[in-house]
Amino acid sequence: MGDVEPLYYADYLQLDRLLSSQDLESAKQGETVHDEMLFIIVHQAYELWFKQILWEIDEISDLFSQPTIDESEMLQIVRHLDRITEIQKLLIAQIDVLETMTPLDFLEFRDYLIPASGFQSAQFRLIENRLGVRPGDRVRLAGSPYTTAFSEEDRSRVEAAEKQPNLFELVDRWLARTPFLEQGDFVFWDQYREAVHAVLDHDRRVIEKNPNLTAGEREEQLRSFDHTFDLFEAIFDPERHERLLATGERRLSFTAFQAALFINLYRHEPALQEPFRLVTLLVDIDQGFTAWRYRHALMTVRMIGRRVGTGGSAGAAFLTRSAEKSRVFSDLVQLATFMIPRSALPELPPEVEGRMRFRFEDEA
Amino acid sequence: MGDVEPLYYADYLQLDRLLSSQDLESAKQGETVHDEMLFIIVHQAYELWFKQILWEIDEISDLFSQPTIDESEMLQIVRHLDRITEIQKLLIAQIDVLETMTPLDFLEFRDYLIPASGFQSAQFRLIENRLGVRPGDRVRLAGSPYTTAFSEEDRSRVEAAEKQPNLFELVDRWLARTPFLEQGDFVFWDQYREAVHAVLDHDRRVIEKNPNLTAGEREEQLRSFDHTFDLFEAIFDPERHERLLATGERRLSFTAFQAALFINLYRHEPALQEPFRLVTLLVDIDQGFTAWRYRHALMTVRMIGRRVGTGGSAGAAFLTRSAEKSRVFSDLVQLATFMIPRSALPELPPEVEGRMRFRFEDEA
Amino acid sequence: MGDVEPLYYADYLQLDRLLSSQDLESAKQGETVHDEMLFIIVHQAYELWFKQILWEIDEISDLFSQPTIDESEMLQIVRHLDRITEIQKLLIAQIDVLETMTPLDFLEFRDYLIPASGFQSAQFRLIENRLGVRPGDRVRLAGSPYTTAFSEEDRSRVEAAEKQPNLFELVDRWLARTPFLEQGDFVFWDQYREAVHAVLDHDRRVIEKNPNLTAGEREEQLRSFDHTFDLFEAIFDPERHERLLATGERRLSFTAFQAALFINLYRHEPALQEPFRLVTLLVDIDQGFTAWRYRHALMTVRMIGRRVGTGGSAGAAFLTRSAEKSRVFSDLVQLATFMIPRSALPELPPEVEGRMRFRFEDEA
Amino acid sequence: MGDVEPLYYADYLQLDRLLSSQDLESAKQGETVHDEMLFIIVHQAYELWFKQILWEIDEISDLFSQPTIDESEMLQIVRHLDRITEIQKLLIAQIDVLETMTPLDFLEFRDYLIPASGFQSAQFRLIENRLGVRPGDRVRLAGSPYTTAFSEEDRSRVEAAEKQPNLFELVDRWLARTPFLEQGDFVFWDQYREAVHAVLDHDRRVIEKNPNLTAGEREEQLRSFDHTFDLFEAIFDPERHERLLATGERRLSFTAFQAALFINLYRHEPALQEPFRLVTLLVDIDQGFTAWRYRHALMTVRMIGRRVGTGGSAGAAFLTRSAEKSRVFSDLVQLATFMIPRSALPELPPEVEGRMRFRFEDEA
Repeated sequence: MGDVEPLYYADYLQLDRLLSSQDLESAKQGETVHDEMLFIIVHQAYELWFKQILWEIDEISDLFSQPTIDESEMLQIVRHLDRITEIQKLLIAQIDVLETMTPLDFLEFRDYLIPASGFQSAQFRLIENRLGVRPGDRVRLAGSPYTTAFSEEDRSRVEAAEKQPNLFELVDRWLARTPFLEQGDFVFWDQYREAVHAVLDHDRRVIEKNPNLTAGEREEQLRSFDHTFDLFEAIFDPERHERLLATGERRLSFTAFQAALFINLYRHEPALQEPFRLVTLLVDIDQGFTAWRYRHALMTVRMIGRRVGTGGSAGAAFLTRSAEKSRVFSDLVQLATFMIPRSALPELPPEVEGRMRFRFEDEA
Repeated sequence: MGDVEPLYYADYLQLDRLLSSQDLESAKQGETVHDEMLFIIVHQAYELWFKQILWEIDEISDLFSQPTIDESEMLQIVRHLDRITEIQKLLIAQIDVLETMTPLDFLEFRDYLIPASGFQSAQFRLIENRLGVRPGDRVRLAGSPYTTAFSEEDRSRVEAAEKQPNLFELVDRWLARTPFLEQGDFVFWDQYREAVHAVLDHDRRVIEKNPNLTAGEREEQLRSFDHTFDLFEAIFDPERHERLLATGERRLSFTAFQAALFINLYRHEPALQEPFRLVTLLVDIDQGFTAWRYRHALMTVRMIGRRVGTGGSAGAAFLTRSAEKSRVFSDLVQLATFMIPRSALPELPPEVEGRMRFRFEDEA
Repeated sequence: MGDVEPLYYADYLQLDRLLSSQDLESAKQGETVHDEMLFIIVHQAYELWFKQILWEIDEISDLFSQPTIDESEMLQIVRHLDRITEIQKLLIAQIDVLETMTPLDFLEFRDYLIPASGFQSAQFRLIENRLGVRPGDRVRLAGSPYTTAFSEEDRSRVEAAEKQPNLFELVDRWLARTPFLEQGDFVFWDQYREAVHAVLDHDRRVIEKNPNLTAGEREEQLRSFDHTFDLFEAIFDPERHERLLATGERRLSFTAFQAALFINLYRHEPALQEPFRLVTLLVDIDQGFTAWRYRHALMTVRMIGRRVGTGGSAGAAFLTRSAEKSRVFSDLVQLATFMIPRSALPELPPEVEGRMRFRFEDEA
Repeated sequence: MGDVEPLYYADYLQLDRLLSSQDLESAKQGETVHDEMLFIIVHQAYELWFKQILWEIDEISDLFSQPTIDESEMLQIVRHLDRITEIQKLLIAQIDVLETMTPLDFLEFRDYLIPASGFQSAQFRLIENRLGVRPGDRVRLAGSPYTTAFSEEDRSRVEAAEKQPNLFELVDRWLARTPFLEQGDFVFWDQYREAVHAVLDHDRRVIEKNPNLTAGEREEQLRSFDHTFDLFEAIFDPERHERLLATGERRLSFTAFQAALFINLYRHEPALQEPFRLVTLLVDIDQGFTAWRYRHALMTVRMIGRRVGTGGSAGAAFLTRSAEKSRVFSDLVQLATFMIPRSALPELPPEVEGRMRFRFEDEA
């Protein structure tokens, strides 16, 4: 090391470029508007963090793209995902800083920006595509595709990512490979269906026999019960699952869905501890972006009211709708719908449980 | 001081009561579920903070209820409001702690809680009523009024607050009393209308003359322009304002609305600096509760999925709808819709501006 | 479930007790000081969270107190620790709320509180003792033991905890039992010493041969190198380790220290992934309390300046010193001192590595 | 506007430059270390925010540099300061993101960075100088001046700022100009001294007459009382003030110090409401940087343990010492030392109070 060129902080971080990349439009037009600097800096900080998020997604995707994932890499994948959730907290915190600019301040330079708009971040669209937002779920901007305002290069990069295997698909395949769902006589999904039925039968009997209910209340509760019962039936029936996939209400494949539930229910098994963290973090990331989009929508209402956004979008309403549509791991988010209490879970046969333990435990 | 009884920390905070108020239902039923403690503690912490918020709202309301507010009290009002916003950040942060409990953990004791539910916080409903959530905007719980599950005492306290002057009304009256809107020949609202027209006329001409637009784009932009124009017209026309009040789309009275805009536009005037903070903090508080409700809804999806809430509510969907309906100061939140750039603002006549300055400035 | 008594939110949370436990001393003395409510509420919220932290520590300690810890419980231990870190963030955030009270507001009721003081939280002292703060490291309050102001009951509870096995000791024993440190010919500590020497020898040669250094710089760098070399030597020498234990500079036993390092260096091995999280979270918790104490000290300077605290302590200076002394897991915090780059690490023999993997992997 | 070139988001933010400024040293040396990207991004984000802070400080300094500050500019100054405090929260939050990198990850590329170091941020040193950190208070890096590692240009920019009027000096002068301290017969400082004596005399009598004290306790309390008494005497005596200035224990001039206290004590007066916010925000900013330095020191311990920092600094110990020394507004931070309860404050004569009110209030 000793005889390489010494490295200086400013050179290493390329501060000459970084800190000379803030050109205020207002200054170009003759009158510097103080708050435009904040607008530029906060968006540049967003873009730096988007680059970091992409860097993590790329690494995670590479690890997931292997035919089999070495268990020694699970921690690494989980740590990359965890880092993304920490960055998401920053993304939200940055809104607090941006809100120190008031609508009146924004009006001073807003017109200079037309038609630039925060919706035009190619990196953010890339993140969405790499995660697995479906092209068909994209909310259109005044009838135009979401890539309209991009440069040729950005557009092709973003559109190419629509076709690459995204994180959703990679996770789906990894889940579907979970090796513990069937072994010998043990078929998890059959056992789980039985357990669910036992729970639901008991629930129905309680409602039917409850002497404190009026006829109306009993009817109401049974209706709600039937709704729950039907939700459960849909997950056990491959054909109904297919139909939910077709309408887009569900995205995970039949087996991946089972595995996700299995991992959540038996998360204490050593071999499932990291997978449990992994699926939990996917939920965190999904909700992190949703929370950020909501906060962003709230800020936009405040900043431009009910006017049209600089990029021609319908402003805040657009953002709220977009937040709803951009969920990727909603099957995982809503998995609680299909859980039953631990005490009612099927017990795993020793030969299944044994496979999920460490070799050194044999000695104990 | 010296001869009063010494005061001890534990007695002062009544820790014997406070720390013996956590009785786990699961323990009563024979098997302690570890995570039920967290569920109790987090909700108790919420209730403590709700009490503090009510304590602040009461004080603010008392100050606002005076026939005239001494300017020396403005700082105090603003500081109480600011404290509420700081507490709101805690309310949101507490969700992160609650989320360390997973759906499966919650299922272990969830059934013991029926029909208790977080929606049954009388203090939170009281906060809403004291702020000014309209009874008619309440989302019904399975057809029942929102006070259904309350004790007699809580119900009457919460319902009484529906009839008391709430913060919204007190603020509306205070705004309407703003003394600078008309003075001699100066009528702010007339001048502002002229200024707005000048801005809009210019915008229209720009669109009409822009040689780079296709006929379709020009038509599109003119349509958007007409929409903006119409939004503005509605604020200048008392009759249209009345109609918006009648439908509930607007809540501030005609004059209060003008004053709110005036305060935002001329916030630099010494006598408007604290009023500007005040209306800004009302927006912060409105958005703070909205943000909390959204985060709460996200957490609920995660915790119970698409099932029905313990209190019989429709769970997450209920919460999202409720977040939309419970806005109180939305006129202030959306005020940016009606702002024009500083450079286009009517100049205030010296006699109006002079009244908003400090007496000591005469000496300068 | 259906026929048990319905449970109401307010009863479940014992809100009648909880919300009637705020008696303002200022009110008793005839003049309610508005901000005293905040002072009470924030401290009560602290005490609720302290109770929760103790609840988690108790559970963790129980799990650790077993002769052997089933690997299926590791996730649970880690999740309890993680919850503590989330609560710590709240503790820090609550200071922001308390700081909405200014020194002048505090002065209005400060004298009523004498000699009560935030230092008198028995629960917090209990947390410290359960974690493993050493009695000898306690900073004395004006010459009195730290339990002086406690009730008889609190004092005996807090002092009893000094004698119970604390979390530090339980972790030390668990670390010392780590089964992979020696196996057949493989003795990790010997191999690691060799690897360290190889790294350090190389570093020394680089310095000695670097033609760009002046004689003075070379001497300076060699001095710094010798310091590092000596730090390392101390960990390999049981006698020097004993001496460091005797002076209190080190707390972990010789073998536990090795295990902690081993876990950090080979954290990717499946059987070490959860242990790695565990030791990381212990560092987080240690630093979380340190960060909170610092923030608390900053707030105290601001609130009372350089005066004496209400409890007779030396105020802010006391708090800063106390923050330094109350570290429990500082050996883990500073473990980075003794790491070498991954590329220089001893390779684990297959039979050692194999034991740390899952049984199901045999099939692959 | 209509016929100017359309502006695109990516061009506006110069994303081509921004996002191509991350060159990993590890990649140059042949093996990309994944986490080096995070290291670069987080430091670049810091530099962006430092630029924004400087942008705000420059604006504030310009406003303060005018011979008299128009009261209509107070809100603006306060909002710039407030923005800095919001950015400080981000700076601290970014540490959480950086800590997702572990010491072992850092070791993978740490050697490539020598001798670059986070201490070499010229912008941060500039911030310190613009705020008013005294050159004499700088902690030396291994005997070298703090500007050693800077480029020629950075060094001259940073050193030039040592000589420019910094924010501390500008604030000191502005405070010293406060127009309400003396008017006719009213001399605030004389009146305050009398009020302080009345309070202290009463306190002394209480101690002397308290029958519950042992002789030892009385002596102890009187010693503590004398200490407080002496602290107060020092602020009323210009010569002692001079001596404190000479030793560096105090920085504010005699009159500025009085004004700062006056503003805090009579903050409710309309003309003092914004000045009160201003001095409060200066305290927030001072403590914000202190809190960040502490958190940074904690992170450094964790990342490199007790080794020497990449820049040759003594690592964590250096940072802690530096945090102590870099306080600028410590006189304001500790002002609480010299406050007395509101009820004991000298009442302001009507002619003084009148000057601090708005002209429009005459009408009431």
